[in-house]
Amino acid sequence: MKSIIALITDFGTMDTYVGVMKAVILSIEPECQLIDLTHEVPPGDIRRGAFFLWQSQPYFPHGTIFLCVVDPGVGTSRKAIALQTKENYFIGPNNGLFTYVCGKNYQVRQISNPAVWRPDLSSTFHGRDIFAPAAGHLAKGFPFSYLGDPLEKLELLPYPRLEPIKPNRLKGEILFADRFGNLITSFGIFHLVEDTVYRLEPMNAFSGFPDSSLKLDISKSRITLPSGGTLHPVRTFSDLKPGECGFLIGSSGFIELVSYRMSAKELLRLPEDAEIQLITENPEWKNS
Amino acid sequence: MKSIIALITDFGTMDTYVGVMKAVILSIEPECQLIDLTHEVPPGDIRRGAFFLWQSQPYFPHGTIFLCVVDPGVGTSRKAIALQTKENYFIGPNNGLFTYVCGKNYQVRQISNPAVWRPDLSSTFHGRDIFAPAAGHLAKGFPFSYLGDPLEKLELLPYPRLEPIKPNRLKGEILFADRFGNLITSFGIFHLVEDTVYRLEPMNAFSGFPDSSLKLDISKSRITLPSGGTLHPVRTFSDLKPGECGFLIGSSGFIELVSYRMSAKELLRLPEDAEIQLITENPEWKNS
Amino acid sequence: MKSIIALITDFGTMDTYVGVMKAVILSIEPECQLIDLTHEVPPGDIRRGAFFLWQSQPYFPHGTIFLCVVDPGVGTSRKAIALQTKENYFIGPNNGLFTYVCGKNYQVRQISNPAVWRPDLSSTFHGRDIFAPAAGHLAKGFPFSYLGDPLEKLELLPYPRLEPIKPNRLKGEILFADRFGNLITSFGIFHLVEDTVYRLEPMNAFSGFPDSSLKLDISKSRITLPSGGTLHPVRTFSDLKPGECGFLIGSSGFIELVSYRMSAKELLRLPEDAEIQLITENPEWKNS
Repeated sequence: MKSIIALITDFGTMDTYVGVMKAVILSIEPECQLIDLTHEVPPGDIRRGAFFLWQSQPYFPHGTIFLCVVDPGVGTSRKAIALQTKENYFIGPNNGLFTYVCGKNYQVRQISNPAVWRPDLSSTFHGRDIFAPAAGHLAKGFPFSYLGDPLEKLELLPYPRLEPIKPNRLKGEILFADRFGNLITSFGIFHLVEDTVYRLEPMNAFSGFPDSSLKLDISKSRITLPSGGTLHPVRTFSDLKPGECGFLIGSSGFIELVSYRMSAKELLRLPEDAEIQLITENPEWKNS
Repeated sequence: MKSIIALITDFGTMDTYVGVMKAVILSIEPECQLIDLTHEVPPGDIRRGAFFLWQSQPYFPHGTIFLCVVDPGVGTSRKAIALQTKENYFIGPNNGLFTYVCGKNYQVRQISNPAVWRPDLSSTFHGRDIFAPAAGHLAKGFPFSYLGDPLEKLELLPYPRLEPIKPNRLKGEILFADRFGNLITSFGIFHLVEDTVYRLEPMNAFSGFPDSSLKLDISKSRITLPSGGTLHPVRTFSDLKPGECGFLIGSSGFIELVSYRMSAKELLRLPEDAEIQLITENPEWKNS
Repeated sequence: MKSIIALITDFGTMDTYVGVMKAVILSIEPECQLIDLTHEVPPGDIRRGAFFLWQSQPYFPHGTIFLCVVDPGVGTSRKAIALQTKENYFIGPNNGLFTYVCGKNYQVRQISNPAVWRPDLSSTFHGRDIFAPAAGHLAKGFPFSYLGDPLEKLELLPYPRLEPIKPNRLKGEILFADRFGNLITSFGIFHLVEDTVYRLEPMNAFSGFPDSSLKLDISKSRITLPSGGTLHPVRTFSDLKPGECGFLIGSSGFIELVSYRMSAKELLRLPEDAEIQLITENPEWKNS
């Protein structure tokens, strides 16, 4: 079966950088299935890239090769690496991009074999000169160990903010806004990684919120709202009136602040990293 | 031969939603040819999506599976459906998206077979959980009837405005602007659907306008123009002087308001839905 | 082996124009590998398209078919052409797009065989009606000569500005900015085409600048800088302090004005075509 290579970068699509990486791959292994995850990670936003990887990799067939280039440190001493997890392969810079997908059992190698690189290494486009060729070699069937030597230490990002501050109150943050202006938060029903300690047991993304007393307090942010800074849960977008905001469990299993056919981001004007608090009258979350 | 799946959504490309749908498809049938029609349908703009489908489907090989997600009512009682026409398959919400491609002979089914769905249904991302798996099952060769039960009623949009108001005058509207600022109108030489009653027989997209007396009256719109609100036909963009606007029969067979290397949208400032009128001194259009 | 078709256009991705071209190709030859180079060439910017082609084609496998539609003169007397070079095929309008990839030995033909065209030619979308079918026919294995008659004259663009004005001073220009705000200049270590006469021998993109006395004088531009209008060379982005600009040899072998995690374009406000001058204390460049 053909190899699948999924590409995620902050290169955008106005230049030819992504097309050139695909050309390099096809020059090594012409029979790949190439899938664009997104190329619009904000420039240099490693956490966003890491989150996107976490969000999408469960849906790919096992054995997918993820080619990941969000690489503000290109040309510095940061290492070019390849990661093999139980399910998939990941290629990219060692800067934390793989924090949420590495799990506990993984192998990581530097892409230190010059036979993998393109002949003339640039100092500014390792996507073309190191990462794409590494993906191409894996797709062609070269063994993982061919890419280079084992690496000691995988760089990891801090986890998104998520901490209990009272028995019935958790502190979290806005992670980012999506295309529709939905604000994705750090309150999740799934573990981002296995040792994230707080999760919201009572929630079930697929049957609504059994705990109808849940509220979101967004008053710590810098703006005042007609609602007094408190949002309530809904099941889907159309449960909201025009101009009203609420929250629901989004498709990745995280609480999202949403509105109906409008942008919650514009209505609420909460910036990324803004503190928010989740409150219940029936605390059931556990330190699992 | 490999199945072709053409994707059209309002998801944009800054998130991983489209990539995740493709991952779901490839997990079911790895050997598809996946083609992006566009993911930049304005959020929730069903009519635009319907028009784009109409505009592009004639160019695809028969048997193409169109995966269509413009779905502001996700999570409500609107049905997830699959449509089989004489030529192609269409998967998406039952909200009017298929108005201009269904023709008169079609079969429509709900995607009600839970074996098609992903195991855990979200209430906000049926593109991933219902529509992409349905497309994957068709691509893999499952029969159309496997998707679910027949549905009684296909939702339909109203037709674009197009009505005679005097013997030599038709009333129509601006449908939308394309990337170049060309304004596509509802005046078309082809039937959007078979029972659209007014069409402009004298026009021929491929040999210019035989009726050189044609004029477009845009004075009903809110702005006044140096030209007195009247535009004249041209054969191609470069027939126009800098800053001048005219109209021609666009590549889809609809009259478009255009300029040369500038944006007619910016020059004319006509909003979507603006009324425009087409005038001839030699009325030949017929109620066919 | 499957044919590779690489697409580059100024169509953007908000409409279905690109998807329709792919549909036309697949209707002729379903087993292609379709690669998007970019569809965001600024509308009508032939030089940008030509430069992008030059920049990316060396990375593709030989035999790639480049489908190139930056075509402000669509519907005029400009010819639709196909070009065969030592390595690849190029399809598009005869307006200079192929200036930097044609080399010295090439064949060029008009796409004049009506059997190649779609049955009804529009006057505004030759991408769909002539260029995509031509690419499809080549991909299917039709010989190059099937497309039409030989053409006498390939249109060529002027070269980017690059001229010596003193023994130690070259005059060049800003070509364009990329997604990151890096400003690509006309100072290149490689020949854009074989008979470009001035090149910068002492530079080597892959080992830094051996001539550490190199400076860029940008004071001819309309703005004044704290640095007095002079930039200095760096090896990679992170060698620069926040808000500082410098220059390096970019991944295509041209000098680029850059900053670290900021946009040099926004910091310097140099427009496209702005004059810049490269100065050395050890002049070694030669009229090769």
